[in-house]
Amino acid sequence: MLPMERAKASFEVARMSEALYGGADAVKRRRFIMMPAAQLLYPEKHEWTREELMKRSIDDFINIHKDFVQEGYRPQRDEVSWMGEIAGNTGSMMPHYGLFLPTIVGQGSPEQVATWLPRALNFEIIGCYAQTELAHGSAIRALQTQAVYDVETGEFILDTPTLGAMKWWNSNIGCVATHAAVYAQLIVQGKEYGLHVFMVQVRDENHHCLPGIELGDCGRKLGDNAIDTGYMRLRGVRIPREHMFSKRQYVTRDGQYKRRVSTGGDSGKASALAKRASYLTMVQARAGMTSLSAGKLAAACTVAVRYSCVRVQGFADTSEGQSYRSAENQVIEYQIQRSRLFKQVAICYAMRASGSWMNEAVRKLSDVANKSDATMPEIHASSAGLKGLCTKLSADGMEDLRKCCGGHGFLLNSGIGSMATDFVWQVSAEGDWVVLLLQTARYLMNARRAALRGEQVSGLAACLEPLRDPLFKISSARPSTPQAVEDLLNLDLLLQYFQYRTLAATTKVGERLDAKMSKGMSFEAAWNACAVGLKRAAESHIYYFMLRNFVEVIRTQQDEHVVPVLERLCALFAVQNMVAGELWSGLLPEDLIDLAEEAEAQLLDALRPDAVALVDAFDIPDRVLNSTIGRSDGRVYEALYESARDSPLNQGKGKVPFEGYEEVLAPHL
Amino acid sequence: MLPMERAKASFEVARMSEALYGGADAVKRRRFIMMPAAQLLYPEKHEWTREELMKRSIDDFINIHKDFVQEGYRPQRDEVSWMGEIAGNTGSMMPHYGLFLPTIVGQGSPEQVATWLPRALNFEIIGCYAQTELAHGSAIRALQTQAVYDVETGEFILDTPTLGAMKWWNSNIGCVATHAAVYAQLIVQGKEYGLHVFMVQVRDENHHCLPGIELGDCGRKLGDNAIDTGYMRLRGVRIPREHMFSKRQYVTRDGQYKRRVSTGGDSGKASALAKRASYLTMVQARAGMTSLSAGKLAAACTVAVRYSCVRVQGFADTSEGQSYRSAENQVIEYQIQRSRLFKQVAICYAMRASGSWMNEAVRKLSDVANKSDATMPEIHASSAGLKGLCTKLSADGMEDLRKCCGGHGFLLNSGIGSMATDFVWQVSAEGDWVVLLLQTARYLMNARRAALRGEQVSGLAACLEPLRDPLFKISSARPSTPQAVEDLLNLDLLLQYFQYRTLAATTKVGERLDAKMSKGMSFEAAWNACAVGLKRAAESHIYYFMLRNFVEVIRTQQDEHVVPVLERLCALFAVQNMVAGELWSGLLPEDLIDLAEEAEAQLLDALRPDAVALVDAFDIPDRVLNSTIGRSDGRVYEALYESARDSPLNQGKGKVPFEGYEEVLAPHL
Ligand SMILES: Cc1cc2nc3c(=O)[nH]c(=O)nc-3n(C[C@H](O)[C@H](O)[C@H](O)COP(=O)(O)OP(=O)(O)OC[C@H]3O[C@@H](n4cnc5c(N)ncnc54)[C@H](O)[C@@H]3O)c2cc1C
Ligand SMILES: Cc1cc2nc3c(=O)[nH]c(=O)nc-3n(C[C@H](O)[C@H](O)[C@H](O)COP(=O)(O)OP(=O)(O)OC[C@H]3O[C@@H](n4cnc5c(N)ncnc54)[C@H](O)[C@@H]3O)c2cc1C
Repeated sequence: MLPMERAKASFEVARMSEALYGGADAVKRRRFIMMPAAQLLYPEKHEWTREELMKRSIDDFINIHKDFVQEGYRPQRDEVSWMGEIAGNTGSMMPHYGLFLPTIVGQGSPEQVATWLPRALNFEIIGCYAQTELAHGSAIRALQTQAVYDVETGEFILDTPTLGAMKWWNSNIGCVATHAAVYAQLIVQGKEYGLHVFMVQVRDENHHCLPGIELGDCGRKLGDNAIDTGYMRLRGVRIPREHMFSKRQYVTRDGQYKRRVSTGGDSGKASALAKRASYLTMVQARAGMTSLSAGKLAAACTVAVRYSCVRVQGFADTSEGQSYRSAENQVIEYQIQRSRLFKQVAICYAMRASGSWMNEAVRKLSDVANKSDATMPEIHASSAGLKGLCTKLSADGMEDLRKCCGGHGFLLNSGIGSMATDFVWQVSAEGDWVVLLLQTARYLMNARRAALRGEQVSGLAACLEPLRDPLFKISSARPSTPQAVEDLLNLDLLLQYFQYRTLAATTKVGERLDAKMSKGMSFEAAWNACAVGLKRAAESHIYYFMLRNFVEVIRTQQDEHVVPVLERLCALFAVQNMVAGELWSGLLPEDLIDLAEEAEAQLLDALRPDAVALVDAFDIPDRVLNSTIGRSDGRVYEALYESARDSPLNQGKGKVPFEGYEEVLAPHL
Repeated sequence: MLPMERAKASFEVARMSEALYGGADAVKRRRFIMMPAAQLLYPEKHEWTREELMKRSIDDFINIHKDFVQEGYRPQRDEVSWMGEIAGNTGSMMPHYGLFLPTIVGQGSPEQVATWLPRALNFEIIGCYAQTELAHGSAIRALQTQAVYDVETGEFILDTPTLGAMKWWNSNIGCVATHAAVYAQLIVQGKEYGLHVFMVQVRDENHHCLPGIELGDCGRKLGDNAIDTGYMRLRGVRIPREHMFSKRQYVTRDGQYKRRVSTGGDSGKASALAKRASYLTMVQARAGMTSLSAGKLAAACTVAVRYSCVRVQGFADTSEGQSYRSAENQVIEYQIQRSRLFKQVAICYAMRASGSWMNEAVRKLSDVANKSDATMPEIHASSAGLKGLCTKLSADGMEDLRKCCGGHGFLLNSGIGSMATDFVWQVSAEGDWVVLLLQTARYLMNARRAALRGEQVSGLAACLEPLRDPLFKISSARPSTPQAVEDLLNLDLLLQYFQYRTLAATTKVGERLDAKMSKGMSFEAAWNACAVGLKRAAESHIYYFMLRNFVEVIRTQQDEHVVPVLERLCALFAVQNMVAGELWSGLLPEDLIDLAEEAEAQLLDALRPDAVALVDAFDIPDRVLNSTIGRSDGRVYEALYESARDSPLNQGKGKVPFEGYEEVLAPHL
């Protein structure tokens, strides 16, 4: 079935891959990255114990990375998310490289970096990122771990003074880490200095816990179990003064707290630069998570689209009284199925575009690291919501695609079975999605207020420009009503509608917020009373942001066969969002919705011949998919059967029917 | 924290439980049912192997049921879903009792029932329901397994002639079943007679496969792994003629296919009665799945609401420069969190009401089993979509509630971690949710056509009555626009809006369907081209159905403290649906949406003091919840810590840090 599908495509798959990943070079680099890891994926891994998963993930990670790193290789921006895409599980080494190393580089003084970085790169020390506590995750400012400076000995004394203060969810502290970057409240001579980071050695040379330190694994999780996410209790643990990370501040031997100033001497500028650098790091990390969300969703799309072309189900002619051998439909022919599949493919391409756009933005911003750039706060604020929304959309999308595979999607060997559950912690971790969307909302409210004051608002917030006019009314801002389906395939008009939605949602909730505060509510109370609306405004904005980035990326494309297909996907992304109705309440006239429904139907038909080619273009090797039902040769039933035969439950046959048979069943039969 | 929360409640929990479960007697019965099973739940089960899970689930099931059943106990309607609620996993015996027994009773002749039923009840034979094949699930008519009658020997010869025809997804055939009720295409003397069911013994007295039969487990699944869902290949398996289930038809020795006629002799009436009986069975099963969806979601609500009251996170005063010990908010105070929690609580109460309403309807319909009843087709059609939508809503709801628990919801010991993944196969099995919604849509299209012909339409379809007027216009059918928030708390007005939505969605897609067919499209093509809209119409109808049932159930309640709270929940169910906007595109004026948003905010506040009492009323014992973070005493952190210490990864400490340490890690350190 699949070769037939591939023959229908309107574009060359290789050209589409280049569009997705940013050129032929990038595609090559991506394949190169995928190669070694792809050789280390195991179809039978779903049957492994946690211990086995952990062991192999550690071994594989070190084997793949050590030589490269020693030869001086440092991954480029997008390479990290490609690596994440292949790794079936996070594994205990990922946080070491992904969180601990950046902490050294980002928070360490030059001497600290020189001491710790080479050893960490070389796996001589294994580090953990120890921020979250049992009782505190999102509210970082309220972490309870203390680092009290002892001026007598020149040491910090670290404590997790209560049960809730115990460090928790610290990836790889359970069994593996030797060191931890511990976030703690710095207290010097009774005075609180806020959160700081400390390097703490947690295990000795025999890998036993050091005195005063209790470590353990938090228990089995919903997914992603190759890693020993753990807890850490500290009781009077003393570390040298030099183990406070001190790129920007330090404590003197006699207990004075000092900020470092840049060599230039201008401390205001220095702190602006520091802020800028930390913004850039965050934006970069979020761009990475956006790309990763796209990459994981791409794998699910690949499985579900291919399977939906192979799966035939239901007679083409539904009248009664026919033979059971009558001709049937491929399930992708069913409009609802196709709508669900292509919705995710479109979201996936849109996310990928936003990931690339953000990477590009980071690159540009880094180039001008000394110039002030007005778009920085805006990109930073959008990146928060983008991480929040994209991880959420990706997890939801994988699960819906799994459902599209019917019963077979429930088997782990389908490859799509546990995709969502292995991924979904990312919606909560590194910023809970709701908390992040509220950050974006806060930015929008500020931008709105600036516009109302008549100030210029830049970049994406430019959609709030109309607010500068004191006579502005939202009802007059609605873009022209499309007259025909074709109008709704026009990306500019679609963009205008998304822009209008942000403007309307921001205005509406902003006015409500103002009204509550002017009635005497505190900021916190008013904010909370409007929070549902604030989240809606932020989501509207992020969709607009994604659509805009998608359009911008398309405009840089040249291939005459690729561009129209991307335009269709982009229009579908927008039009399905309108048809679904969420976040659009009251904003779209009924005629427009009728047209949008028609546009969706047309786009689903127009994209139909390109279905398999669109997912082939994700360029995910079979070994990475690790899927019986999504394999590129389409031999779904053979693969399901072979994999089932390997089920451990089928191995004992002939001897005992199953463990416990004699005991629990035979006596009754 | 929780005692304080409980003190705030505006009603007595026991009264609410009675309202939920249908009176004090029902609550008592439910506790009685829960008791034995609740003693057999194991906190450590998340660490068990599949073999161990299977073994214990078989043992427990037989121990709990055998004595009761031998004493003549047969579960009442709602009791089966209560049993399902407690069972953490389906287990290999559930399909035996839940699918195989009903097949004997529903399809067997009196002699067959007399032979097979007592042995099956007594666990002397264990049966499997063998319908689905590797290549066919939803399209039952296209199943490929053959039963060819051999007139020479008077036997049927069963075959799964191709790889795709192999039976697949047959719960408990992998290791456990001795017999199977096999669905196969009956072929007699070269003529196809369609699907029939056959009793096939699959294992011998040593529990080895019989000749020509290959059995096995399908492999590990996303969840619910205590059961050996398996496959079965049949090659020339001969069974006696008497093993075709023959309540309604049989094959004579010389190869004639005969239908049984009722003793009354009126074959038309007999077949109507048979159809009616099979409708009733189906409606009953779906009512059960609706109640089960409610019950499972109730457990998730209990965990998430309690935890959200215990969890404090984020300073009450968000200004800069405060101590890290400043006062914080319970997360349930955050409007978005509360909106997500109460949304699911309201859905849960609504589902429960629909489950009860349906049970009641079945009871009434059974009482008049000989009278024709016009509402039967309508209830049957609604039950399809109800099963489809409720299983889907329940799975989605559990997952969102899991996310509401932040990181801790990702731990399996949270009890909420794998709730959705253990449950979610029910969205696909026993009727894929989309396929079922399309069945409801088909009914709606027929009802619409009847109304357009001027015929009366009854029951819920009465909302299509206005279509009987040839001059009818949808725009004139919109209910009065509410003028104040209070209007939106009026359940009658809300019902009118939901009714109006069904009418509008049905009309819109019906007209589109007609237009396509009148342009010469085949029925199948036109249907498919409108399928997205058809599903929307069906969903609209099911929401209306749920709201109507909820209102009806409330109207039967007496308790003066319970009723206002139920009314608030019911209004919230409706209002949040409007605010979300999905399915409402173009139907609600903007002013109404503003009021609805305000109404939602007010309801969330009004329900706040009752939060914990509303979930306590579900009356789910701690043992059933099996949750560290949802326990009724609120000792969340103690429980998390204790459970973590039990993690198998923490047991080896002192000797080897972890399995593989010496091999994969020590050489590098
Ligand atoms: C698999 C996994 C790995 C992890 N790895 C690490 C690691 O290596 N190191 C580390 O330090 N941490 C790690 N974490 C912790 C992670 O960063 C936290 O779980 C995350 O920050 C969310 O915080 P929380 O779990 O405390 O949720 P909470 O903050 O308790 O959130 C609970 C609920 O309250 C809501 N809420 C909270 N605050 C607000 C607010 N202000 N306004 C509105 N709503 C609010 C949230 O939306 C959520 O629904 C990991 C977590 C997981 C699951
Ligand atoms: C855990 C589990 C236990 C099970 N237990 C049993 C058992 O004991 N005995 C048994 O016989 N079976 C059992 N089943 C099988 C179950 O009944 C089927 O999986 C179910 O009927 C769905 O069929 P399918 O998997 O073939 O999905 P498919 O029909 O292949 O559906 C795939 C996709 O196509 C879409 N689709 C299919 N047909 C149409 C259509 N006409 N119009 C529009 N869209 C369509 C669906 O919406 C879905 O998205 C079990 C399944 C599971 C997962």
